[in-house]
Amino acid sequence: MNHTYDAGDRLEAQIGTSVRQATYITGRDGMAVVKLDNGYNLGIPYDSCRFLERPGQSVARKPIVTQRDELPVLSIVSTGGTIASRIDYRTGAVTSQFDAADILRAIPGLSSIGRFRTKQLYTILSENMTPAIWQELARAVHEEIVSGARGVIVTHGTDTMAYSAAALSFMLDTPVPVIFVGSQRSADRPSSDNAINALCAAKTAVSELGEVAVVMHTTTSDDSCSIHRATRVRKMHTSKRDAFTSIGVPPIGTVKYPTLDVTLAAHARKRRETEPMVLPDLEPGCGLLSFVPGMDPAVLDAFSGYRGLVIAGTGLGHVSTAWIPALRTLAKDGCMLAMTSQCLNGRVCDRVYDTGRDLISAGVIEAENMLPETALVKMMWVLGNEDDPDKAAGMMKEDLKGEIEGRSVHGL
Amino acid sequence: MNHTYDAGDRLEAQIGTSVRQATYITGRDGMAVVKLDNGYNLGIPYDSCRFLERPGQSVARKPIVTQRDELPVLSIVSTGGTIASRIDYRTGAVTSQFDAADILRAIPGLSSIGRFRTKQLYTILSENMTPAIWQELARAVHEEIVSGARGVIVTHGTDTMAYSAAALSFMLDTPVPVIFVGSQRSADRPSSDNAINALCAAKTAVSELGEVAVVMHTTTSDDSCSIHRATRVRKMHTSKRDAFTSIGVPPIGTVKYPTLDVTLAAHARKRRETEPMVLPDLEPGCGLLSFVPGMDPAVLDAFSGYRGLVIAGTGLGHVSTAWIPALRTLAKDGCMLAMTSQCLNGRVCDRVYDTGRDLISAGVIEAENMLPETALVKMMWVLGNEDDPDKAAGMMKEDLKGEIEGRSVHGL
Repeated sequence: MNHTYDAGDRLEAQIGTSVRQATYITGRDGMAVVKLDNGYNLGIPYDSCRFLERPGQSVARKPIVTQRDELPVLSIVSTGGTIASRIDYRTGAVTSQFDAADILRAIPGLSSIGRFRTKQLYTILSENMTPAIWQELARAVHEEIVSGARGVIVTHGTDTMAYSAAALSFMLDTPVPVIFVGSQRSADRPSSDNAINALCAAKTAVSELGEVAVVMHTTTSDDSCSIHRATRVRKMHTSKRDAFTSIGVPPIGTVKYPTLDVTLAAHARKRRETEPMVLPDLEPGCGLLSFVPGMDPAVLDAFSGYRGLVIAGTGLGHVSTAWIPALRTLAKDGCMLAMTSQCLNGRVCDRVYDTGRDLISAGVIEAENMLPETALVKMMWVLGNEDDPDKAAGMMKEDLKGEIEGRSVHGL
Repeated sequence: MNHTYDAGDRLEAQIGTSVRQATYITGRDGMAVVKLDNGYNLGIPYDSCRFLERPGQSVARKPIVTQRDELPVLSIVSTGGTIASRIDYRTGAVTSQFDAADILRAIPGLSSIGRFRTKQLYTILSENMTPAIWQELARAVHEEIVSGARGVIVTHGTDTMAYSAAALSFMLDTPVPVIFVGSQRSADRPSSDNAINALCAAKTAVSELGEVAVVMHTTTSDDSCSIHRATRVRKMHTSKRDAFTSIGVPPIGTVKYPTLDVTLAAHARKRRETEPMVLPDLEPGCGLLSFVPGMDPAVLDAFSGYRGLVIAGTGLGHVSTAWIPALRTLAKDGCMLAMTSQCLNGRVCDRVYDTGRDLISAGVIEAENMLPETALVKMMWVLGNEDDPDKAAGMMKEDLKGEIEGRSVHGL
């Protein structure tokens, strides 16, 4: 038994009943972490490994990657997610200045799905995303589609991926798939989801889908990814690989792994041969605030001068009676107010109880069953594109991009 | 066929293969809404009803309720939830000044579970709850236990029930069950959950449980209620009867319906013969704020002067780099800062990425896997009872009432 492998050593690994070639990455928890030649990382016992060779410095370790002309052109737009970044297993450094060849070397399975070109917009942690970056991203994706991409993959940190994807849904009218994908575990961890997510995202990007979506692990196993509508998806776990969940609706599709068969749901919007459109204007002066019992209405002063405020109220969409005068003042000063629910699931309805009726009389818009975060980015887009307050209010209640779902059997 | 029943008419109703006596309430969607004699409301076709009698004005309609001396004493503390209120089916008015006899008449099945006494604290919509009312509630429940109640049922509006239940968990050390129960559908609706929830809550209140819990429908069917730990439960749907969900942990028990068999999980805290304790001090100057991309750090000024602020960050517990200086200022001014995640599930960990490490250096406490709302009420209680900042910070990271769960298999 040899526990002294170097990063980069070529090994033979016994996995179940099959023997696969792999590259040693590191040791972790008494296991050897190896990268299989299909790009997938695995932690296996050391005694399942057999040393093959240690590539010398002079050996060219970059296999030659060829792109196949007959495959559809896909564009990868990177914002700084780790998924398509390349790790040098000698230094441990993450190479973020990647090109198509780097990506295909890191995840070789991609080369049989599409012909890739790449555009690196940003290298930032996704908590540092801003509406201004969403606008630049929307313009970049639009440009990629105009110049012939049959699908666009946006690699993105998972923290705020759902916000960005929802924002692009409103800014962009796309006839081809625009697929956001990320990785919950970085590529050097045995449990990394980066390769499977990337492969499933690429297959979705060449599928018959025609809308903005998020593609991530369906469960904690590695047998499929879900395709989530961008306006209905939410990160619902800090660390699990299946952190992303469609809220209140089924996913719009599934990609099986390893077959990479894509199944689209009947309610998924399909690929079209129309021109893409971009309306990237956003009003950044919009806020989101969750109400909690006893919350001082003076907190609302922080949003004075804002053009819009989404409230995540309790239950059917409530706040305390003490909040009503402050909300009335905000509304009078021209701040659009929209009510969502911190329950996340279900429709708001402010016509049942007293405080709700007070809210409506104060000018609060019932934001149907929109997710609070989706309502926020929609409000930014609506106020960025429609000056008439009544028309803007009407748009908030209208389903534009699948963000408002039809009345459910159980819902109000 | 007679579609002209009056409210209060006595009927015979064919339900499946059995014939039950019932009282006519109203018509809805072409169906007759009737109240069965066990208190459960049902919508049934008119041709399944047979008229029995129309009680005259002179007929005493209130059946005599007897309480059985051999049953354990249960106390019902009412804060204004509709669950135990009595509806006059002639006038439609809700009688909120209820007494034990009224409750037992409304839900006759209760009389075989316990001997009831009642205390009406408030009649308010639960969005108007405040930390001051939580304190009064904790004192009232403590008093009921001291004076011999073998279990306490707190009827509560569902909107903020989870907040109140969590608050009582910290304020109260109870050797007997303290069961919060509510109703998602009011008692005059055929789909009302009030009777089943009340019966299941009462059975939990006489069970071997010894902690604060929420008892509500498990699914949309009427076959069981779940017993949720108060510090891990969240209202996750605006209107469904199974709106309440234990987050990140299984429920601590189940009550089957109609058998009313109670099963407690191994991790449920059990009934004890110790004295109840109440520590009702709370620091109301605590806030909760969710971060969204691009959020202006000036919003944090609204919490200037606060003694504590819980942040619901993205993913593992992040905010934008632009927030760090403002958080540092709050911390320097003596505001305790705790980080939770808007993902709701999973543990925060700010030692992975740059912004996280900046947060820790700014004095932000990682609030483990606490729900943001639970972290808020816990912070109020901790700061109300512990003046030493380091000790208070230590308490925030310590599991006091099941609010912090052990490291999960998948979690960080």
